[in-house]
Amino acid sequence: MKVGYLGPNGTFSEQAVLNYSKIYSDVELIQFPTIRGVLDAVENSIVDEGVVPFENSIEGVVTTTIDGLIFDDKKLYIKSEVVIGISQNLLVRSDYNGEKIERIISHPQGIAQCDKFLRENFKDTLCEAVSSTGEGARIVSESREFLASISPKRSAEIYGLKILKENIQDDSSNQTRFVVVTNESPKSLLGDKTSIVFTTDHKPGELYKILDIFAIWDINMTKIESRPMKHKLGTYCFFIDVEAENKDDLRDALKMVERKTSFFRLLGSYTRVY
Amino acid sequence: MKVGYLGPNGTFSEQAVLNYSKIYSDVELIQFPTIRGVLDAVENSIVDEGVVPFENSIEGVVTTTIDGLIFDDKKLYIKSEVVIGISQNLLVRSDYNGEKIERIISHPQGIAQCDKFLRENFKDTLCEAVSSTGEGARIVSESREFLASISPKRSAEIYGLKILKENIQDDSSNQTRFVVVTNESPKSLLGDKTSIVFTTDHKPGELYKILDIFAIWDINMTKIESRPMKHKLGTYCFFIDVEAENKDDLRDALKMVERKTSFFRLLGSYTRVY
Repeated sequence: MKVGYLGPNGTFSEQAVLNYSKIYSDVELIQFPTIRGVLDAVENSIVDEGVVPFENSIEGVVTTTIDGLIFDDKKLYIKSEVVIGISQNLLVRSDYNGEKIERIISHPQGIAQCDKFLRENFKDTLCEAVSSTGEGARIVSESREFLASISPKRSAEIYGLKILKENIQDDSSNQTRFVVVTNESPKSLLGDKTSIVFTTDHKPGELYKILDIFAIWDINMTKIESRPMKHKLGTYCFFIDVEAENKDDLRDALKMVERKTSFFRLLGSYTRVY
Repeated sequence: MKVGYLGPNGTFSEQAVLNYSKIYSDVELIQFPTIRGVLDAVENSIVDEGVVPFENSIEGVVTTTIDGLIFDDKKLYIKSEVVIGISQNLLVRSDYNGEKIERIISHPQGIAQCDKFLRENFKDTLCEAVSSTGEGARIVSESREFLASISPKRSAEIYGLKILKENIQDDSSNQTRFVVVTNESPKSLLGDKTSIVFTTDHKPGELYKILDIFAIWDINMTKIESRPMKHKLGTYCFFIDVEAENKDDLRDALKMVERKTSFFRLLGSYTRVY
């Protein structure tokens, strides 16, 4: 069993995939340099599953992941989810001794999660986005300038960096939800959570009609996310998570949702593993 | 009258603010290095208004802008909107002659809008985020390596760059909606579009109840965006745009929305100026 995730060593994705892979006895973990690379590898069966960040409690949805699930020609599905606590830290080279920090680097989500800290403490320091929080730490360790990265603590150990400041994210209860994606379509609606995507006709009240269906069957919608349809400003596709104890009701409701939408896809019905 | 926007010269924000400022006879345009900087300047009355990108038809909402409108302690409001067509181009130094391109740089939205082009043509080239599309072009012009930026055509003129490939965005009808923000609260509901933010109790069906209100008064919801509440995964704040010809109905409906939500704020009622 091969599972892909966003590398290098020391990313939050690595932490998520290490937690997730405990449920398997024989698993090979494979790093990719981008989230897009993980999704491509799943689509093309280079790996069996991919663990990718889906949404963060401060910065919101990861657009590469959600758009991959919604728009890719080859189909991707959600098989499971993993939630981990996220502690961001300001890391510097071990020989740092109060010098001016030239730049601060991290994944865009890392930068966004520490927005308040950066505004209060590094108002005039340039922040640059790199492909992952782990990659940021790696770059700091190899740089000749004094850079800082926003990265997990684990990155400090891996790359021999000093933790200048711990827990710098805007809210102490920062969490990220990762999804486990496969290219196998879901077989049942038995999971705790069920995710769908759909588009409606571009007419007033069309989204309301869909939520009305969930209200009729007492199905709890726990998340709604709108994503642009890309060809025209103001046209959206909706991603929705629902929870329902009565799986017959859920099946009937989704049948009705499918009938009332112009595009509908069941992304998965799954249970949190960690 | 002072209007702030995201610089440097050559950004799409500059194009939007140039269009917008035509409606005034005496206006001073002031550049800021980040969107956050523009919002801060408006909050602190350093400028009278700020023109900031709000959402793009390919990549979706600009999280810095929407979170600034929703969460800032000092209040920001929307006074107007401007929509411009976005054509992204691959720019290189004028002496480029087929050398290997080391890195491609742009604002994260610029990179995301050209995702397909980059995957098809520059699969193994590192993409790096910088603070704006114009800043990307400026860096290319000053770099000793062969970099490329994803930027507006205007940037090529300003920084003396060559256009290696035109219109590289994933969809030819790429548009960005900019909002004009002020720190003055809205005086009426007379605009074509009205924007609100609210949170509901974290109970099943609460969002449905709000959309029900709009359905009762035949008010057309043209956009819904959920943003995380930041302190707990799975809790959201909603941004909604509505359009209603009957302003008395709109007032009555919003009064009811305010009553049924745990937090409510009218962000603005405004008309597109360009």
